Amino acid sequence: MDEFALIRHYFSGLTTVKHGVVLGVGDDAALLRVPSGEELAVTTDTLVAGRHFTEDAPPEDIGWKSLAVNLSDLAAMGAKPRWFTLALTLRLADPDWLEGFARGLRSLAEDSGIALVGGDTTQGPLSITITAMGTLEKGSALKRSGAKVGDLVCVTGTLGDAALALRMRDAEDLPESLSRRLHRPQPRNTAGLALRGKAHAVIDLSDGLAGDLQHILDASKVGAEVRVDQLPLSEDFRALAPVEQRLALQAGGGDDYELCACIAPGDFDAIQKSLDVPLTVVGKITKKKGLRFVDAAGKAVKQDFDAYRHFQ
Amino acid sequence: MDEFALIRHYFSGLTTVKHGVVLGVGDDAALLRVPSGEELAVTTDTLVAGRHFTEDAPPEDIGWKSLAVNLSDLAAMGAKPRWFTLALTLRLADPDWLEGFARGLRSLAEDSGIALVGGDTTQGPLSITITAMGTLEKGSALKRSGAKVGDLVCVTGTLGDAALALRMRDAEDLPESLSRRLHRPQPRNTAGLALRGKAHAVIDLSDGLAGDLQHILDASKVGAEVRVDQLPLSEDFRALAPVEQRLALQAGGGDDYELCACIAPGDFDAIQKSLDVPLTVVGKITKKKGLRFVDAAGKAVKQDFDAYRHFQ
Repeated sequence: MDEFALIRHYFSGLTTVKHGVVLGVGDDAALLRVPSGEELAVTTDTLVAGRHFTEDAPPEDIGWKSLAVNLSDLAAMGAKPRWFTLALTLRLADPDWLEGFARGLRSLAEDSGIALVGGDTTQGPLSITITAMGTLEKGSALKRSGAKVGDLVCVTGTLGDAALALRMRDAEDLPESLSRRLHRPQPRNTAGLALRGKAHAVIDLSDGLAGDLQHILDASKVGAEVRVDQLPLSEDFRALAPVEQRLALQAGGGDDYELCACIAPGDFDAIQKSLDVPLTVVGKITKKKGLRFVDAAGKAVKQDFDAYRHFQ
Repeated sequence: MDEFALIRHYFSGLTTVKHGVVLGVGDDAALLRVPSGEELAVTTDTLVAGRHFTEDAPPEDIGWKSLAVNLSDLAAMGAKPRWFTLALTLRLADPDWLEGFARGLRSLAEDSGIALVGGDTTQGPLSITITAMGTLEKGSALKRSGAKVGDLVCVTGTLGDAALALRMRDAEDLPESLSRRLHRPQPRNTAGLALRGKAHAVIDLSDGLAGDLQHILDASKVGAEVRVDQLPLSEDFRALAPVEQRLALQAGGGDDYELCACIAPGDFDAIQKSLDVPLTVVGKITKKKGLRFVDAAGKAVKQDFDAYRHFQ
């Protein structure tokens, strides 16, 4: 099957003509219209078999997560998801696998209102690169560089679930709810949109709080103090994560896909009420550079973990 | 080295702030401004080691070609190259390889005026996915669907050189000029821009004339007759391609990255003069469906080759 037939057959449900799509899949390039007065946000992320998922992982999960990690970047900019391209490299064009992959992808694409506008299919080791595009009003983007001394450091949802699920992946008693946090992360696009014009700096947590918050600190030229006892944890996490591993999982583990936002203290209550997901204060931005983890008494906690490294 | 350091170190020369880049590499997404009154053209293409190039190919060539195949799609739409993202999957972050790759990429990016605005680096089997974006005046795109009965079928440059170079890749007497056609294809962006508002339908020749022209015929609901004796050939090709293989190489071989344009006969002379590359008439659009290859006497020539297949 050639790539055109392949895309038509499996991905046709994803290519619905949406507002702003002048020309979708099927020409040399897609043609898109960015609404007047808006900017385009573009992000790209790759998932590779053996690195981000196992070769035999359910294709529905792979399809979902390939898009989720990109949507999470759009969420962190406060951009409305609009369009994406799919570069799919496969060993074989296996119909069952492709149907499952397309089903997982479609499910999240429909939830998010994002349309497939182009792609490329190639034979080779299993790998998926999605480039996602969103739009936002000029000047409204949630950058990493706006954190101010005194801001509250806040995170959506709970932290560490995906890292715990990864560590427990061979355990028979791994709860489905925990497994979903790893394989079907829910990008926080609605929360990202609600944070526009309110949060001073936002990033999504893909590599772990320690590493990702550090990017905000670097871009904003500030420091932060994070209270380890305030990191939000799920019921599953509370029940299953060994106490001595909690901090490493919550601050050093990746794949949370929650948002970390720096917010003026006076704005916190209103912002918290406006979100569709819990928002928890975990620390504060400081003039003193560096990222410090402290306990309830303000005592430094040893940070014995690393952020996710892309090459090791 | 993490991905940020890696991109900063090797690709910094590519990320020059260009007109329209509000925010480049270094946040969750790039922020871009599409000029008012213009549309965005987006295309994505993957090159995989072992499929599109050999694992030990010069990294300069891989860098160049990864971008060239995407620029060629923008050329075929008549879009001005603006921005691209780079998803790079590598076994190892080898400094020599990365320097070479970045050098090849930068060389073509500078020629084309396209800026790197984002990316992702991942550990895994060597593979490169680039998503290229261009802009063009609303309604001016060169689609595949506008070919009209009576149009001349024209191609830029010469055909078959890359396919011949691939076939002769182990030959000691392979001329450098022929090898470059395979490893350093020159996308026809200037020609694509000059064809806007003039050509009725355009496609770039990545999979071979037979397969690619068929896409125009399908989209335009017409047929075509192509004269095999009029297919333009280079001096190298004339000297080295066995006569009995010429048609298969010129119409069935891939990787030409020339443009195929359907043009009203009365417009040909003016268009030919306006291009920076030779333009040759190779056939005409017919009411009769299907693609037929004929000789100088109008006699059908057997088409004993296939278009490039993405899965085999």
